[in-house]
Amino acid sequence: MEKNIAVIWGDCSSPEIVKQTLRVLDKVAEKYGHTFHYTDAAMGGEAIDKYGDPLPQHELDKCLAADSVLLGAVGGPKWEGLPGEQRPEKGLLRLRAGMGLYSNNRPAKIWPQLAPASPLKPEIVAEGIDFIIVRELIGGVYFGKHETYTLENGEKQAVDSMPYSEHEIERIGRIGFETAMKRRRKLCCVDKANVLDTSRLWRAVMHRLQAEYPEVEYSEMFVDNCAMQVVKDPSQFDVIVTENMFGDIISDEASMITGSIGMIPSSSLGDGTRGLYEPIHGSAPDIAGKDIVNPTACILSAAMMLRYSFGMAEEADAIENAVNKVLDKGLRTADNMSEGCTCLGCTAMGDAILAEI
Amino acid sequence: MEKNIAVIWGDCSSPEIVKQTLRVLDKVAEKYGHTFHYTDAAMGGEAIDKYGDPLPQHELDKCLAADSVLLGAVGGPKWEGLPGEQRPEKGLLRLRAGMGLYSNNRPAKIWPQLAPASPLKPEIVAEGIDFIIVRELIGGVYFGKHETYTLENGEKQAVDSMPYSEHEIERIGRIGFETAMKRRRKLCCVDKANVLDTSRLWRAVMHRLQAEYPEVEYSEMFVDNCAMQVVKDPSQFDVIVTENMFGDIISDEASMITGSIGMIPSSSLGDGTRGLYEPIHGSAPDIAGKDIVNPTACILSAAMMLRYSFGMAEEADAIENAVNKVLDKGLRTADNMSEGCTCLGCTAMGDAILAEI
Ligand SMILES: CC(C)[C@H](C(=O)O)[C@@H](O)C(=O)O
Ligand SMILES: CC(C)[C@H](C(=O)O)[C@@H](O)C(=O)O
Repeated sequence: MEKNIAVIWGDCSSPEIVKQTLRVLDKVAEKYGHTFHYTDAAMGGEAIDKYGDPLPQHELDKCLAADSVLLGAVGGPKWEGLPGEQRPEKGLLRLRAGMGLYSNNRPAKIWPQLAPASPLKPEIVAEGIDFIIVRELIGGVYFGKHETYTLENGEKQAVDSMPYSEHEIERIGRIGFETAMKRRRKLCCVDKANVLDTSRLWRAVMHRLQAEYPEVEYSEMFVDNCAMQVVKDPSQFDVIVTENMFGDIISDEASMITGSIGMIPSSSLGDGTRGLYEPIHGSAPDIAGKDIVNPTACILSAAMMLRYSFGMAEEADAIENAVNKVLDKGLRTADNMSEGCTCLGCTAMGDAILAEI
Repeated sequence: MEKNIAVIWGDCSSPEIVKQTLRVLDKVAEKYGHTFHYTDAAMGGEAIDKYGDPLPQHELDKCLAADSVLLGAVGGPKWEGLPGEQRPEKGLLRLRAGMGLYSNNRPAKIWPQLAPASPLKPEIVAEGIDFIIVRELIGGVYFGKHETYTLENGEKQAVDSMPYSEHEIERIGRIGFETAMKRRRKLCCVDKANVLDTSRLWRAVMHRLQAEYPEVEYSEMFVDNCAMQVVKDPSQFDVIVTENMFGDIISDEASMITGSIGMIPSSSLGDGTRGLYEPIHGSAPDIAGKDIVNPTACILSAAMMLRYSFGMAEEADAIENAVNKVLDKGLRTADNMSEGCTCLGCTAMGDAILAEI
């Protein structure tokens, strides 16, 4: 197969992980007889520096023209003082919206070899951590109106609004149920229905969908309780579906309990097969240029791209198995080091994964 | 001293913990020569059953007339099907607003005797968990407009709005700084300033306050990152200040890492000394009537009332020390049991604490 991949190299230490990821993709292409064409697209800090805009239309167009998009991570201290519209994150939000990527899929899965790195007690980890957070990505308070104005008495007031309409909930709710059907068939809708109208609308829509998926064990949980349960007993979860902001918070918490956020990929999809694939970690400015950042989450994001956007399950397996073997051999990057293991830099970790494909 | 306390007995297993708490208060009164007058006030499920309203004005008036309010916990399956306005939680929200309680103080502190119950690894717990979350309690999305309407195309849309004005931020921000001054002088403002206008306004106000508190080491953190840090390295926090919804989520997560949510009290205060004191846990419907619920969080809430509303520091210490001694003796309720300890029911735990005062 021939595929066009838009590549957003990202900021700070991000180009280092993207570089290793493209090496891995090339190896897969060679081995399985595919051709991947890469087109560089600028977004985030790089785009601000080049164009004064975190996502100019011509760069978004490159992403829309591709079969899928690979992203490292954007942002860094250099761009932190900028006003809202010109910040790197704004480029990411506009990319998600521009590509119509309403469904963000974030696995929280523990690699057995890295289990000791979890901040949770071994007894809890032993029960198993393997769930997915299906986060709505282009609605809610992220994309509602944001206003700041001066009241009559002279003080400032800001208002952010969190809108959700039925079709936005239904399409992501359906992804939640479909994802559960492919797994252990448990779906938990996380919300704050005791306070929010949007949450009550979510529940109403979810109840309609539930009727279509009688095999799925469906439950509901308030987000504050969920923040507790993720720490107390993560093994209870199979698939969580939730709105944008709650998904942001809960998925980060969930990634942390695995103890290895340098290993967690993510996919963002819309109605077609074109997706955006990126590690969940940030651009790690503090270690940029040192060739010590962990490229694995980005490499595993590429594996997700092969699986979900290109239908290349075997190829995705090849990458994931390679990562597994590397871990089995005790090879680690600095973020995951533990006694008795060998510490590799970013390039060396790329080499090690390549060698297993 | 003579003090009037409005007592909200609450629902399900709540009256059991309130009963033990009043016994403790009576003992303190006797020992230190105070008189506490109790006035029952109905709120939540009880008020719905009696008056068809989770907080009728005459019950709110009783709370406003008191020197302070003691609350167990409200809600339960019986009232779950009711429409929003008639649900028990709505009574709680209206009580907070009606009393002007903008500052919710939730300690996340580990009792050394209960450290093994933390879901976190001993290495992390050993670093220390002792921080306070100062949560804004009567603003933000909890009290913004909630609307659900039908769009032209026939589908429903809901919008929740999250407003904050400068004076609302300033008064809680000040509590954050003042709280930090009394402790380790570190304050972290938790927000989502890369997305929300309200968060950006928070930061602007906090920066002004910061100038007044040069001795406080002030920092800012995105809420998603905070959800990770609470699990990864809770020892980094001294005081967290944050808006209502983020405070709800982060404080519940923080309570869980202590491993003993049956032990955590909370205070809610406004401009005067009249406060609302309640355990952070819920009404535990599943164990109602069995005399096994842990009364400690409610008893410690009463201690907070003595300290913060009545200026009775010695009396508060007496209660807290009594709890400490009881734990030292290996006495536990079912929720905190571990090997080698003695399991007590709710009344017996009340007896045990009383005996140490
Ligand atoms: C950078 C930020 C706007 C973004 C978000 O909140 O969605 C990030 O935290 C994420 O989760 O991808
Ligand atoms: C019951 C609910 C409305 C309430 C809240 O969200 O504030 C509770 O979770 C709390 O934290 O006291």
